[in-house]
Order: sequence, then C-alpha cells, then structure tokens
Amino acid sequence: MRTYVLDPGARIPLYEQLYRAVKEDILSGAIAGGEKLPSKRALAEHLSVSRITVENAYEQLLAEGYLISRPRSGYFAQRLQTLPSAVRNNTPHTEQTAVGVPSASASYFPFSVWAKLMRGVLLDRREQLLQPVANVGLEELRRAIAGMLRRSRGIEADPDCIVIGAGAEYLYNILIQLLGRDRCFGLEDPGHGKIAQVYGANLVRAVPVALDEEGVSVEALRQSEATVMHLSPGHQYPTGIVTPIGRRRQLMAWLAESPHRWLIEDDYDSEFRFGGKPIPTMFSMDDVGRVIYMNTFSRTITPALRISYMILPPELMAQYRARLGFYSCTVPAFEQLTLARFLEEGYFEKHLNRMRRHYRLLRDDFLEKLGASPCADRILVQGHEAGLHMLLRLETALSDEEVERRLAEVGVRAASLRRYEMRPAADTRQGVMVVSYSDLEQEQLPMLIHVLAEITA
Amino acid sequence: MRTYVLDPGARIPLYEQLYRAVKEDILSGAIAGGEKLPSKRALAEHLSVSRITVENAYEQLLAEGYLISRPRSGYFAQRLQTLPSAVRNNTPHTEQTAVGVPSASASYFPFSVWAKLMRGVLLDRREQLLQPVANVGLEELRRAIAGMLRRSRGIEADPDCIVIGAGAEYLYNILIQLLGRDRCFGLEDPGHGKIAQVYGANLVRAVPVALDEEGVSVEALRQSEATVMHLSPGHQYPTGIVTPIGRRRQLMAWLAESPHRWLIEDDYDSEFRFGGKPIPTMFSMDDVGRVIYMNTFSRTITPALRISYMILPPELMAQYRARLGFYSCTVPAFEQLTLARFLEEGYFEKHLNRMRRHYRLLRDDFLEKLGASPCADRILVQGHEAGLHMLLRLETALSDEEVERRLAEVGVRAASLRRYEMRPAADTRQGVMVVSYSDLEQEQLPMLIHVLAEITA
Repeated sequence: MRTYVLDPGARIPLYEQLYRAVKEDILSGAIAGGEKLPSKRALAEHLSVSRITVENAYEQLLAEGYLISRPRSGYFAQRLQTLPSAVRNNTPHTEQTAVGVPSASASYFPFSVWAKLMRGVLLDRREQLLQPVANVGLEELRRAIAGMLRRSRGIEADPDCIVIGAGAEYLYNILIQLLGRDRCFGLEDPGHGKIAQVYGANLVRAVPVALDEEGVSVEALRQSEATVMHLSPGHQYPTGIVTPIGRRRQLMAWLAESPHRWLIEDDYDSEFRFGGKPIPTMFSMDDVGRVIYMNTFSRTITPALRISYMILPPELMAQYRARLGFYSCTVPAFEQLTLARFLEEGYFEKHLNRMRRHYRLLRDDFLEKLGASPCADRILVQGHEAGLHMLLRLETALSDEEVERRLAEVGVRAASLRRYEMRPAADTRQGVMVVSYSDLEQEQLPMLIHVLAEITA
Repeated sequence: MRTYVLDPGARIPLYEQLYRAVKEDILSGAIAGGEKLPSKRALAEHLSVSRITVENAYEQLLAEGYLISRPRSGYFAQRLQTLPSAVRNNTPHTEQTAVGVPSASASYFPFSVWAKLMRGVLLDRREQLLQPVANVGLEELRRAIAGMLRRSRGIEADPDCIVIGAGAEYLYNILIQLLGRDRCFGLEDPGHGKIAQVYGANLVRAVPVALDEEGVSVEALRQSEATVMHLSPGHQYPTGIVTPIGRRRQLMAWLAESPHRWLIEDDYDSEFRFGGKPIPTMFSMDDVGRVIYMNTFSRTITPALRISYMILPPELMAQYRARLGFYSCTVPAFEQLTLARFLEEGYFEKHLNRMRRHYRLLRDDFLEKLGASPCADRILVQGHEAGLHMLLRLETALSDEEVERRLAEVGVRAASLRRYEMRPAADTRQGVMVVSYSDLEQEQLPMLIHVLAEITA
C-alpha cells in the first residue's frame, strides 16, 4: 500500500494533505488509471489517521472526478484520457460548462409519471387546491425537499427554514429585500448574465469578482466592496469550476470575519455531476449561520415548471417571516403537491440518474470521436465532468462570432465565453466556446466534429 | 316623461349632468323605487341629446347601484331600502367592502370542470408543458384574457401588451423596477395593507393619499409628492368606493399634466359587482398612454392559483421588453393553458355569475334580517353593492378590538376600518367594521344579527 507523509501540525488539514497527494499521484500516473485504491478503513489504518480523514479526501477526489466509486467494489482512479483535459494542462480544478444554462432535454422527462401524479393530486387533494398556500410554500413540499437534500446532497435542512418561490430570479428579488438594498453584492466573473440582470434591475450595487482556477478568488473578493457573495461553488456557470475544499474554507473564513457578510450558494447544477458525488455544500460547512442555499427544479424537471427554493439560516428565516411573511407564495398548490409526490416516491432521483446516464454516454461518445479526429490536438475540452455543457478551447483563426455561427448552422448551441465576462479578462479568451449538448443528438456528433475540424483547420 | 334641463355649454358634460339629475330624483324619491325609467332611445329623443349621452349616464347609475337593469324589460330605479345606506346619509358614492381581501368561497369553485380541463391539457399539450414559457406568458392565455376583458369589461387590450405574473404582489415588484425606484408612489388611505408592504419592502417612497367620498382626493394627490398613483377606482378596498366618472376625469387631468405621472389601476374586485355593470376602466379612458391596468384570478378562481396580469401602454411595454424581458415567466405553463381554456370555453363567466348570485342572495337575506331586527337603527350598512364584504358602522360603546372579538366568536371575519388607515383619519372611525361574508353561511345570519344587537345594545 502506498504511503503518504501527512503532517498533523501543518496549517492544511490532514484530509486535504491526503487529497492533494493522491491527486498528484493520479495526475503523474503513479496511480494508474483504473487502479483500485485501498478501502477507506485500510488506508486509515495504514496511515494512522481517522477514517473521517480518508473519507473527506476520497469524497473530494470523487467530486472532482479523480476517483470513481463502484458499488460493492471500491474506489478506482479515473483513467487519464477521461480526466478533465484542463487538469492535464496545469489548471487543476477547472471543470467547465456552458450557454444559457440549458435544461435537461424535455424529451427525457417522465411525462406520463408526472401526469399520473397530477391526476392523483386532482383526485385526492381537492381541499388543498382550494385553500391559500402558506407564504413559504406547502409543508408537504418543504418536507419532501428536505428529504431529497438529505439523501442526495448530505444537507440537513429544517423544512421550516425552506422558502418555495416561482423561480430563482424571483428568490433573488426576495433576497435583495431581505438582506437589504444597502449591501454590495459580489458576482462571479465570468458568470450567469441573468443574475447580474436581476441585481441591475433592482438598482442595487453589484460588483464583478474575478475567478481563478479554484473559483471565486478570495483576494479579488477582499479587494472588492462586496459584503454578499453570490456564488456557485458546486459547479460554476459557465466555467464549470468546482471549488475545492481549501478554497471553500478560505471563503468561510472571509464570511466569519464580519457579521455583515453573507454567502448565497446557488447550487443550480449540482444534480448533473458525472464523476462521483457532489462536493458537500458550503451551507453544510456553515457554522456562523450566514450561508443561504438555493436551488431550482426548472432545469431538472421542465422549464415550464417554475419551482425554486432557498434554505435560510434560522435567524434570517425569523427576519424573513417578520418582514416579508406578508408575501403570498408564488407557486400554485397544484405544482407543489405534484412535485412533493414526485420527490417522495423516488421519481426525481430515478429521473436524474437516467439523465446523467444519457448525458454521460453522449459526452463519452463525443470525446472519443473527438480524440480520434485530426483536430484533437487543436481543441482542449474542459468542464465535461458535469452539467449539460462544456468548454471547448479552440485553436482557430476565426472570430468568436464566426465560430458561434458555424456551430449554430449544424444545430449546436454555443456562445463565446467572452459573452459571460463582466470585465474583460486579462488573459485573452478568444476561441473559447461554451457548448450546450442538452439538445444534441448522438447522430449529430460526426457533423459537429467535422465542423470543429474545419473551424480549427 | 320626466324632463331634465341639460346645458351643452356647461363645463360638466351632458351625460354627467343627466346622471346627477336622475340620481337626485331617485334619492329624493321623485323617482320611486321600482319605477321603470324611459328607454335610452326614448329619453334621448325626449331630451334631444344623443343616445350615447343617455347610455353613459345610465351606465354610471347602474354601476353605482341606483338603477337595475332587467333583461328584455328595461331600467328600474333601485328601491330606497336596498340603496347604499350611506347614500341616504349624504355620502353619495361611498360603497364599501372589507377584511383581508377575501376570495370567493372555495366551495363554489367548479372543481370538476377545472380538473377536466387540466386532464385535457395533460393529454393534448404535452409539447408546450415541456417548453420554456415566453417571459410575458403564453400567447394563448394572453389572447383569452383579452377576449374576456373585451366581453365583460369593455377593455380593448392588445394581447402583446399583457404580462402574466405569479400574483399581483409579484407584478407590483416588477412595476417598481419598470417605472423606476426614484418615483414616489401614492397609496390610497385607507387601503390594502399588502400594497403598502410591497412598496415598503422595496424601500421606495410611498405616501398615503387620502380618500374622500368619491375615492382618491385630487387635492390630496396634488398636495402629495406622488407621481405614480396606485388606485382601485372600480371598487376601492376596504371602503368599497366606486369613483364616479367626474372624479375619474379629474384624475386623468392630473395624469395628463406631466409625462412623469402614471396611474396603476388595480381592478382587483370588479368582478363582484351586484348592481349593474362595472364602470368603464380608467385604462379605457387613457389617451396619454400612462394608465397601467392590473387584475388577478387568485380571488375569483382559487387563492391556491397564482395568476395575475397587467396591461401596459405600448411604449411602456417596449421598455418592459428591453429592460425586464430577461425575467422568466413565473407562472407554470400548465396553469396558463388550463386557465386559457377556462376563459375561452365560457366557464369563467359562468362561475362569476353563479358567485354573484350566491353572494347577492346572502347579502339580501342579511339586510332583510337586519332591517327587521331591533338594532337596525344603530347600524349603518355601507359597501354592500359589490365585493365579498361590507362596512358596518355600529353605534357601540365597545372598543373596536372587542367588537372584532365578539364577531370572531360567531365565526365572522371582521376588522376595524382603522386597521387599514396609514394616517389616522381626522373624523373618528371607531365602530366601523369591515366584515367579510365570503365564508358566511345562510344559517349563521340569525346568530350574527343577534351578536350585532348585543354589541350595539
């Protein structure tokens, strides 16, 4: 068994030392792709550390795609060719995604199950369909969400601290009113344009905070005036960066320094991770009660359904009830009851698993075909471990607009990464495309590769 | 046939002169209760005025409850005892309503029809249920709303200027962002507390504007700093005042004086008028393009359904699309499609007619029982021509809180009018109760009268 020298006296915690060392070994090839790793118990004994230490390190490696876990079989190193390409190019944690935050393809939605549940709600819940809905949403749905979060995300959420709303944008509006208009909101740059638009439409101060390869740069955050940081550490949009544990701890330290600081953890995309489990949320790490967790079902179920939610820390929840409890819930009881059943009866997780499988196959097929194509050397793929999009870094003489146009011609949704920048980045990003493959069909892949070869010729 | 002297040279238009004269005759008894009035054509010929003049006058009298119209029979003067009590006490236009803006009783909602339409949508419209919804809402629903408004409200609305949103409160938030945070919003005082709360939560300047017996006082409005007046001329909450045409013209004059002025016509309750047709909206009178019309289905269908809409003047609509078009529609496609069918297939109007009949009978029964009770002289009933609530002006030694408590004990929702005041009114309003009878059952009436007799004893 491989031995790692871990230093209990170092400033970096043991699990992170172990995580770094194992990752280094995988990247260098010292641990071969496909090699089975020791069990958590065995490694803990071997290194004389607690099992929790190994567990935390493995979890992070899983989340970032370095390890894969096979049920009843154990942990295996990811094969180098399926490792994030960026990783092989010294930008370790850059995992990225793309354009207009696509939803999962509607054709895979289990419509007949949903329709069956709706008919059931119509039959059984007449009374509730005619009563006003509590401002925070129906308890039934809040409980179902808490259960789902516990099972799939490791989040312990009090259903009484969950607020249901008609879409994330609506909840951003509510958060501005709740946290206060005098605050300065930090936005990830590059980032999702709509978030900036919501803050802009509300005329509150919002400043771009630059990302580095681990996500929000703490240095940039400290230099900014932001007191509320709106971020997606689980899978940043559009770069797809998964913020590692070390950076998360730094962000938590920033948060803890002042009672006036807040984090809005926008976990919009955590469901579509292909490699390993999602990293534990910052909400779960929060011991100062100032991380707000948000997520939505619009993207995972259907965009025609507008249901999002947020979990507020208890003190903030009390403030919400006192000051904004007058608002009526914006989501119809009918959708809430149907979604509650969809979650409770296991359909949501089944649906997600099916989606994940589908997109992983599509992605693998694309990567394989790309690898075999003559343009393989001129294209760097990033962010394909998660989400419904990836970043293509193209060596091309064409303008970004021209590349977008050429891809659109073969039915591929793509947008230049530059479109997501608030402040133009110092390093040029020409030729970086955020490509959505949620609408992509297997049959389109040869044509897509063909066009990419032309673009980079 | 009675003759009225109308002066075409006067500043007051002919139809308003006629309306005033007929109203005077009804109030004085010169036209007896139940007396048939001349047909519009006959009276127009007799007075040598256009038929439109008579039509406008009759319409206003109908809307305010002075006339009733019997199909194929003609126009009749309202009987004095069922006239607005306040009218008999020199506060001519005061028609009032009450507590928490109640919804129509859920038990009357045609649930099986709604469920049938929902099942139909599930069968036929699968594709649309999986597609994103246009920011302004589905065209199908916007067309259906425009059709309903044309038929029942005389409003000519361009479906492309309608914006669908998850509840009126959500749309108020959008309007603040659209009109601008630097404006000062005028709120009716007394008024619906939630409206003030929404402006308050957004930290925009909002000032109370006092009402007189015709609705928003133009003098008070001019003395305020308000540049946007948020009002319900069709049926003010909680006073139930129906703003007469003359006052509407004065408000339109105020609006026309500056391009920076706006009116938000919140027509939340126009569906539940018992006497005659609703008065034409200010939106329909608007020739400067600065009246925004709003209404909701939450109260008429079920509060568990959150669908409201607003009609924006074309120029404002263009601004909305440019600046706020990025927002996703907050109402699920499913509810939009179901409601579109409910409107298109005539169910909505049928439902409203049924509701109106039900509440009118309940009200009549209450008034009759009250009239026959020993406390009749100590109670003045106002605002019972419309809405699901009325104002009871009680001669009582009890505090308002005690009266509320006594009524709650017999299951009657009531709140002191004082609770709706932003600035305490100069004239004391002690003993004025806003009473909701939307949950009231016929069987409760004797008990209610009994308690009222005790309270005013």
